[in-house]
Amino acid sequence: MSVSPVKMADAIRVLSMDAVHHAKSGHQGAPMGLADVATVLWTKFLKYDASKPDWADRDRFVLSAGHASMLIYSLLHLTGFKAVTMDQIRNFRQWGSATPGHPEYGHTPGVETTTGPLGQGIATAVGMAMAERSLHARYGDDLVDHRTWVVAGDGCLMEGVSQEAISLAGRLKLSKLTVLFDDNNTTIDGEATISETGDQMLRFKAAGWAVKAVDGHDHGKIAAALRWATRQKVPTMIACKTKISKGAGPKEGDVHGHGYSLFDEEATLARQAMGWPLPPFELPEDIAAAWLKAGRKGGSARRKWDKRLKSHKDGADFTRAVKGDLPTGAFDALQAHIDANIANPVANATRVHSGSALTALTPAIPEMIGGSADLTGSNNTYVKGMVPFDAPDYAGRYVHYGVREHGMAAAMNGMALHGGVIPYSGTFMCFADYSRAAIRLGALMGVRVIHVMTHDSIGLGEDGPTHQPVEHLASLRAMPNLNVYRPADAIEAAECWQSALQHKTTPSIMALSRQKTPVARTASATENLSAKGAYELAAAEGGDAQVTIFASGTEVGVALGARQLLQAGGVPTRVVSTPCWELFEQQSAKYRADTIGKAKVRVAVEAAVKMGWERFIGEDGVFVGMTGFGASAPFERLYKEFGITAEGVAEAAKAKLG
Amino acid sequence: MSVSPVKMADAIRVLSMDAVHHAKSGHQGAPMGLADVATVLWTKFLKYDASKPDWADRDRFVLSAGHASMLIYSLLHLTGFKAVTMDQIRNFRQWGSATPGHPEYGHTPGVETTTGPLGQGIATAVGMAMAERSLHARYGDDLVDHRTWVVAGDGCLMEGVSQEAISLAGRLKLSKLTVLFDDNNTTIDGEATISETGDQMLRFKAAGWAVKAVDGHDHGKIAAALRWATRQKVPTMIACKTKISKGAGPKEGDVHGHGYSLFDEEATLARQAMGWPLPPFELPEDIAAAWLKAGRKGGSARRKWDKRLKSHKDGADFTRAVKGDLPTGAFDALQAHIDANIANPVANATRVHSGSALTALTPAIPEMIGGSADLTGSNNTYVKGMVPFDAPDYAGRYVHYGVREHGMAAAMNGMALHGGVIPYSGTFMCFADYSRAAIRLGALMGVRVIHVMTHDSIGLGEDGPTHQPVEHLASLRAMPNLNVYRPADAIEAAECWQSALQHKTTPSIMALSRQKTPVARTASATENLSAKGAYELAAAEGGDAQVTIFASGTEVGVALGARQLLQAGGVPTRVVSTPCWELFEQQSAKYRADTIGKAKVRVAVEAAVKMGWERFIGEDGVFVGMTGFGASAPFERLYKEFGITAEGVAEAAKAKLG
Repeated sequence: MSVSPVKMADAIRVLSMDAVHHAKSGHQGAPMGLADVATVLWTKFLKYDASKPDWADRDRFVLSAGHASMLIYSLLHLTGFKAVTMDQIRNFRQWGSATPGHPEYGHTPGVETTTGPLGQGIATAVGMAMAERSLHARYGDDLVDHRTWVVAGDGCLMEGVSQEAISLAGRLKLSKLTVLFDDNNTTIDGEATISETGDQMLRFKAAGWAVKAVDGHDHGKIAAALRWATRQKVPTMIACKTKISKGAGPKEGDVHGHGYSLFDEEATLARQAMGWPLPPFELPEDIAAAWLKAGRKGGSARRKWDKRLKSHKDGADFTRAVKGDLPTGAFDALQAHIDANIANPVANATRVHSGSALTALTPAIPEMIGGSADLTGSNNTYVKGMVPFDAPDYAGRYVHYGVREHGMAAAMNGMALHGGVIPYSGTFMCFADYSRAAIRLGALMGVRVIHVMTHDSIGLGEDGPTHQPVEHLASLRAMPNLNVYRPADAIEAAECWQSALQHKTTPSIMALSRQKTPVARTASATENLSAKGAYELAAAEGGDAQVTIFASGTEVGVALGARQLLQAGGVPTRVVSTPCWELFEQQSAKYRADTIGKAKVRVAVEAAVKMGWERFIGEDGVFVGMTGFGASAPFERLYKEFGITAEGVAEAAKAKLG
Repeated sequence: MSVSPVKMADAIRVLSMDAVHHAKSGHQGAPMGLADVATVLWTKFLKYDASKPDWADRDRFVLSAGHASMLIYSLLHLTGFKAVTMDQIRNFRQWGSATPGHPEYGHTPGVETTTGPLGQGIATAVGMAMAERSLHARYGDDLVDHRTWVVAGDGCLMEGVSQEAISLAGRLKLSKLTVLFDDNNTTIDGEATISETGDQMLRFKAAGWAVKAVDGHDHGKIAAALRWATRQKVPTMIACKTKISKGAGPKEGDVHGHGYSLFDEEATLARQAMGWPLPPFELPEDIAAAWLKAGRKGGSARRKWDKRLKSHKDGADFTRAVKGDLPTGAFDALQAHIDANIANPVANATRVHSGSALTALTPAIPEMIGGSADLTGSNNTYVKGMVPFDAPDYAGRYVHYGVREHGMAAAMNGMALHGGVIPYSGTFMCFADYSRAAIRLGALMGVRVIHVMTHDSIGLGEDGPTHQPVEHLASLRAMPNLNVYRPADAIEAAECWQSALQHKTTPSIMALSRQKTPVARTASATENLSAKGAYELAAAEGGDAQVTIFASGTEVGVALGARQLLQAGGVPTRVVSTPCWELFEQQSAKYRADTIGKAKVRVAVEAAVKMGWERFIGEDGVFVGMTGFGASAPFERLYKEFGITAEGVAEAAKAKLG
């Protein structure tokens, strides 16, 4: 006895409606409209095994329109993903449930990425499709051969990041990526045309995609379109013409039915319209069985793949990479680089030191994939010998992301989520503002991505205030679960890279200088001092410290210079380097207290705003830094004009000492 | 004797080359490539009068490719803008010069907007074109009839914000907007095709623009294309096929000639190739004269316009609006609203209170133009009776920006820069991350734009952590010249709106709650207390304060509740409301010290991260707030789970009291 696919889709519609109605919050419109497309995809095309949500060779399904979360929760429940029981559906949007308002990666098995902030899903999916091709190049068809499917709405496509994503995907000819556009002409404020009259199909075509439109409620035509997509040599976009709230009887197609809007009576009418026989949160047995069967369909392919993995010559390495473990000896060359620098210290810009660290790391860690948003030479993210990541073989490890900071950061999230790849990228620190929404999502999801951000202060010089971060360190340090590293020299740069790579569930910012900075660390250390977040770099001489100077990055040199002046004037002064505040917060209370110390005067110097420095210098400490935007001039002049000099720091300390 | 237009263009090329060579920094490639297009535009089409850079009815010229700053400095110098002398050209990128690395609004007369962060110029220009249409609707052809011209490069068009800008402009049919695309297939990393193979003309066409390609070095064809542009009914994009570094002899067309790359010998060869007779920073007399003549050409139109302004019935109002002065009685209705609320306080969400303030303000201030990024009902930015801003007459005052937070913020900058308009807009606070680059540019330029950002904490509830700001207050407070308002109730909301409107050169964030919050202010005040940034809302009773609780917005209610508990337990406790930290910093030292007070225990409560609160509570103060991301659940539950309650605050204070 076969079950009607439309009835299977109705199951999604009814669950979505019931959950939203029960929570009195959320969106039923999009899940109901998308139910047919999702049913065809999840019963006939998507490669997955509901009993193994983490099967490495599964297709990735990304619900970019994250507010339609009941679509994926319905699918996960219906196909038998254990975590999403009917109780969880009933607890939609409640404290502690597996069914939060928007899908959250790491919270609900089967959810591939956190979505909700529009456009992020599609941009993240591009990274997943890139990672798939990269792993395919490394391990071959036998282990890696899957697709990435994205469901995106009008809102996703209006967000600028979607353009960065689709133009990058088009450039890279990511043919295993398909976007299903929920073309329902509806946004929260009403018909989409009140704010968007562009031709989305033409737009994707302009970006090098193959495009097709389809009736999003005709299962046969949907299937034909999905089949078509799997045969293209470029990424594909299918505009699925749907009615929002499909099946909701009198409310079907209602542009004001985006969010919670089927109240008691409407929900009853919708049930009647669909001819749905059961009360809320109950499913007809035959429909439930048909869905569970679909959820198990991929099991046989998955088991065959398991066997191939076992017998594959690189199977163990594949498993290691996908687990996120680093290769044996990952840091050997880096340690040699540190030792060489202790023996023979070299002053340079910290971006150059970072480049040297990458030179030691990338050959040892083949899953590292670098790139830059068109600032390769400035970011020092390219290591000699790297080949561009590109069609047709995708064996390269350097991505030319183009001037697309936001799309780049989101793609990195997708690569890390996919697994088997450790992405790092580069841009100027000021442009963290462009990618911040994606940086945040990475922090929320807890993925290992490393954002190299050079030109991290007024030290950038002539390009002027538009390119000079002053508030960016503070604004990034304010973000939970993000490690902001600001190394002072070659040793700290190497240590920070090591620490960033060792943090599997925390993204990192590598704040690096354009300008040369003096050598700070000259003594060998048995442990990674930067990984402690802050540490005493120079002790006071000639008595207990009267002054402690705290600094990070390029200002560590300024602090050391000030210490020299103060010591010369008979003031015992110590310097604490603070390469990563977040890691310092994680140290023991004793270590923190000892590091901060008891000097009468505490001074901080950073070519940035003060916000947050109170944790080191207290309420009454002296801060030498920026109070407003920078200016365009050679950097030496800027440091002098803004008073961020060894002399300035020493004088401020002396004034405070009295 | 007529001067060859190509020679006039060569003057731009040579000046650009010389300035970059002298500074040993900057970009000559794009200015040299664009010289022909710019020459045709500035000698034949652009409406301006070099002697009156602030003529209100001038055409706006936006150099979105801001790194090509020597293009505009050359043009300003050649056409006779007084500020840009040859000395200033010689001082390109030096401290204090009128010729910083990237063009800066307010710094160099003739520069219409600060550019450099790519894509911002084109998105800002959309706002200028919107403002032009709005003022045209208010004042008519006689006073307002000008165009906006944008020069954008490959990088600008790769940035996602450009898509938001062009789709919005296409939707609004902004026919007086023209983008000149410097189609030179060059980015910093090499040929643009290494990262972009999209068809830009097709993309603009998909967004509803009219498009045309032209040889960017053929003056006749350029002129024909510009003429064509002025006749279209939709925005226009002209792909100008150019060679980077045009005229540089052997280096012409060199994809590695983007930045400073014509060194001594190359500069000499370029001079030879152009047949340029003079040493650096000198101009042939005939060419200089021809350029100065072009710069004066608009004088007669400008003088006629001056006359029309004088005799226009709304001339005085036009002048007032363009100056940025508010109308007489701008705040009368708002004051009545405040008085009514003192007499009859109503508890509600602060977004609702903000909406009420807008209801009082928008009829009194006709230059206020509202809008939302598709969250109108949630942001309470729409005032009953407002009509959408749209073609053909553009008389409406409410912009349906679509899901384009970044484009919206940039367009607001453009509207404010254009003048005569005070833009405000709405989105969820979390999505400040999307628009941050434009918010920053507004702060750097000092423009009056007001970003309404509702759903400003975990109080958003069920939508969960993707939509719950926790670090956004800190990250926005870190930005120079940005006032972050977070009102606690109806009175503070009204006061904050008044203060925001009174700050002509500082953009504002209005952080507002989704959830209802209790009445905080019940007494009448003779002055705007919120404009002081922080003030004592409730004094201690029964003795000197032992505890001071600092709070903003929705947590002021929590603080008042805690005070009640503490007072009931015999602990004299005062509450300080902190609606705008930036304004508090501007008060006298005495006012600040008095407001912070001398209570033994200082507590801060905010449903956000701690960063920055030390300025109120010191190093040892108690902070009750968030330490990580939020969660999906009804807001009452979240406040309880995260311990942000009156009981929690009172207990923390008592524990600290000992």
